[in-house]
Amino acid sequence: MGSSANVDAGDRTTNCDGVSVDKGVDFANYFCTYGFLYHQKKMLCDRVRMDAYFNAIFDNKEHFHGKTVLDVGTGSGILAIWSAQAGAKKVYAVEATKMSEHARELVKANNLQDVVEVIEVDVIISEWMGYFLLRESMFDSVICARDRWLKPTGVMYPSHARMWVAPIRSGLGDKNMSDYESTMNDWHGFLDETKTYYGVDMSVLTKPFCEEQRKYYLQTSLWNNLHPHQIIGTPATIKEIDCLTVSINEILNVTANFSSWITVEKTRLCGFAGWFDVHFRGSRENPARHEIELTTAPSIDNGTHWGQQVFLLHPLRVSEGDNMIVSFSMNRSKENHRLMEVELGCEMKQSSGKMVGPITKKFYIE
Amino acid sequence: MGSSANVDAGDRTTNCDGVSVDKGVDFANYFCTYGFLYHQKKMLCDRVRMDAYFNAIFDNKEHFHGKTVLDVGTGSGILAIWSAQAGAKKVYAVEATKMSEHARELVKANNLQDVVEVIEVDVIISEWMGYFLLRESMFDSVICARDRWLKPTGVMYPSHARMWVAPIRSGLGDKNMSDYESTMNDWHGFLDETKTYYGVDMSVLTKPFCEEQRKYYLQTSLWNNLHPHQIIGTPATIKEIDCLTVSINEILNVTANFSSWITVEKTRLCGFAGWFDVHFRGSRENPARHEIELTTAPSIDNGTHWGQQVFLLHPLRVSEGDNMIVSFSMNRSKENHRLMEVELGCEMKQSSGKMVGPITKKFYIE
Repeated sequence: MGSSANVDAGDRTTNCDGVSVDKGVDFANYFCTYGFLYHQKKMLCDRVRMDAYFNAIFDNKEHFHGKTVLDVGTGSGILAIWSAQAGAKKVYAVEATKMSEHARELVKANNLQDVVEVIEVDVIISEWMGYFLLRESMFDSVICARDRWLKPTGVMYPSHARMWVAPIRSGLGDKNMSDYESTMNDWHGFLDETKTYYGVDMSVLTKPFCEEQRKYYLQTSLWNNLHPHQIIGTPATIKEIDCLTVSINEILNVTANFSSWITVEKTRLCGFAGWFDVHFRGSRENPARHEIELTTAPSIDNGTHWGQQVFLLHPLRVSEGDNMIVSFSMNRSKENHRLMEVELGCEMKQSSGKMVGPITKKFYIE
Repeated sequence: MGSSANVDAGDRTTNCDGVSVDKGVDFANYFCTYGFLYHQKKMLCDRVRMDAYFNAIFDNKEHFHGKTVLDVGTGSGILAIWSAQAGAKKVYAVEATKMSEHARELVKANNLQDVVEVIEVDVIISEWMGYFLLRESMFDSVICARDRWLKPTGVMYPSHARMWVAPIRSGLGDKNMSDYESTMNDWHGFLDETKTYYGVDMSVLTKPFCEEQRKYYLQTSLWNNLHPHQIIGTPATIKEIDCLTVSINEILNVTANFSSWITVEKTRLCGFAGWFDVHFRGSRENPARHEIELTTAPSIDNGTHWGQQVFLLHPLRVSEGDNMIVSFSMNRSKENHRLMEVELGCEMKQSSGKMVGPITKKFYIE
């Protein structure tokens, strides 16, 4: 490739604007350059480029003969045509600009229409949602496919997604705390024995062991299908995603500050639950006739395999009318981009006027 | 989706390892879960999930009738089959795990093999390279396609890429500096006139105008096809990419520290040039019979439309045997992920023993 927006030593009029990454603008800025035959010709006339690909393909026909080939961003279709001429069984040639029409004509004129298929997609359907929507980071692949495959008039199934957080009560924390305490008691017994029987003092490892176990028992979010009665306050939407326009950058981090009111008389705030819903609405130009919702919210009869993610805090007595200010921030784990790290902060203004907190805690969605 | 590595409130044995993002490991950890029918069944039994997609498709048949549909990560193939049953002209169902074989059988058993095509790709061919290799960030799409489309035994065309930097001499800097000076002189005339004729003092804008023009004239890298004689020192490889295994994370930033020796007697160091080459080598298991190289290095007869990117510094007298320690760091622009920002540092140890620098400068690849 090598589009012409770069500053040429001789011609400085084509400098790029450096606007933010808006899908429409990005498409206009980036892809439209490749929509002109003039620009395609410039690349097709680059003899070094052409010879390299030509020789790479025809000197290595065994890589192509009888094989399925994908040409990502085919442009004029030249690489797809060569692949077919080298004996490919099938070539999928993908192109996001209207150059796809020229590519299709070129394929036909070279009598390769049975082998080369120029792909433009009307609908992308995918079930990409992980726990709490974004775990697994599979949506990245869908975004990439959308940007390269989907026609400008195309639709996404689902078209919209939302993430929710709400305060909950739950007995899960008690079990976890007792498991954690029992593990730490066991560790202290182990230390004594190792000292007595083997003469080695391992107490220097207490702190890292404690941290490791705390992370495992107390800081890892839990999968659970909660009963709706366990929701004790007003849920908040912490993220709204338009699947047709969102960029990967926009889903790397989810940050929200919200307020929630306790709606249950005299109960225990044990933590928060996170879930998602997605909607099938088509696009603005091409709306769905029947809008469908898929929700993973707590439900008596309609639990899903996604359940909810539960983030446990040290329990706190609360009552109806108490108000919480919650801060939520989720990022991908640096060690494994498919897992998530969450920072949760909570400050409580009780209806009596008394302030509690702020409490902050880090969680891992593993 | 919603794979089973998450910590369940009842079963804590499936905790994930949190290893670094190695393509092979990631594939093993992530995709293999979806390679089991047991896991597919779990998702196929999630009635809320199934009903939502079923109704979304069949209540909105007009989105599918006669249309081309892409199912990203088809798994068992259920969404592709429904899309076909709702009247799609063609459904491309992509699946990276061996589940693709089951999906193909399921499609055939439902007599939809003329509409649904389950895609596994043997070769991905793409001409994705931008100026200085990574400008345009189009390689992201190729990586995504590879991760979702390419068979484990598949090959990439090209298979490898390298980025190079070398010290150069060039007359481009003189013209740019004089253009910049003339622009600033013109600005001072404009200030005087605005003050005299309109009574407004605009001198507060001098600093931002100066910064804007410095960026434009002095800090933006230039496109140029250099003559090999303009290379005045040893070139260094600053990045090597294996297209079969590299992740997007690994190309977000390019950082290198290297040493270069001046190889020309008494000349001017005017800056650095960056270029790339790519190789077509197939894969380790399936190597190319003839390895082809495409290089965009300075050349008398074989210039390319990519040329080289020139980073100009304030000129410095150098001579053969002088040694430079160069630090290079390139990141995507926060404003537009297809453009790049470069930090270049250079310290010179002259053969006389005298030290010059370090000089550091920021550049924009636009």
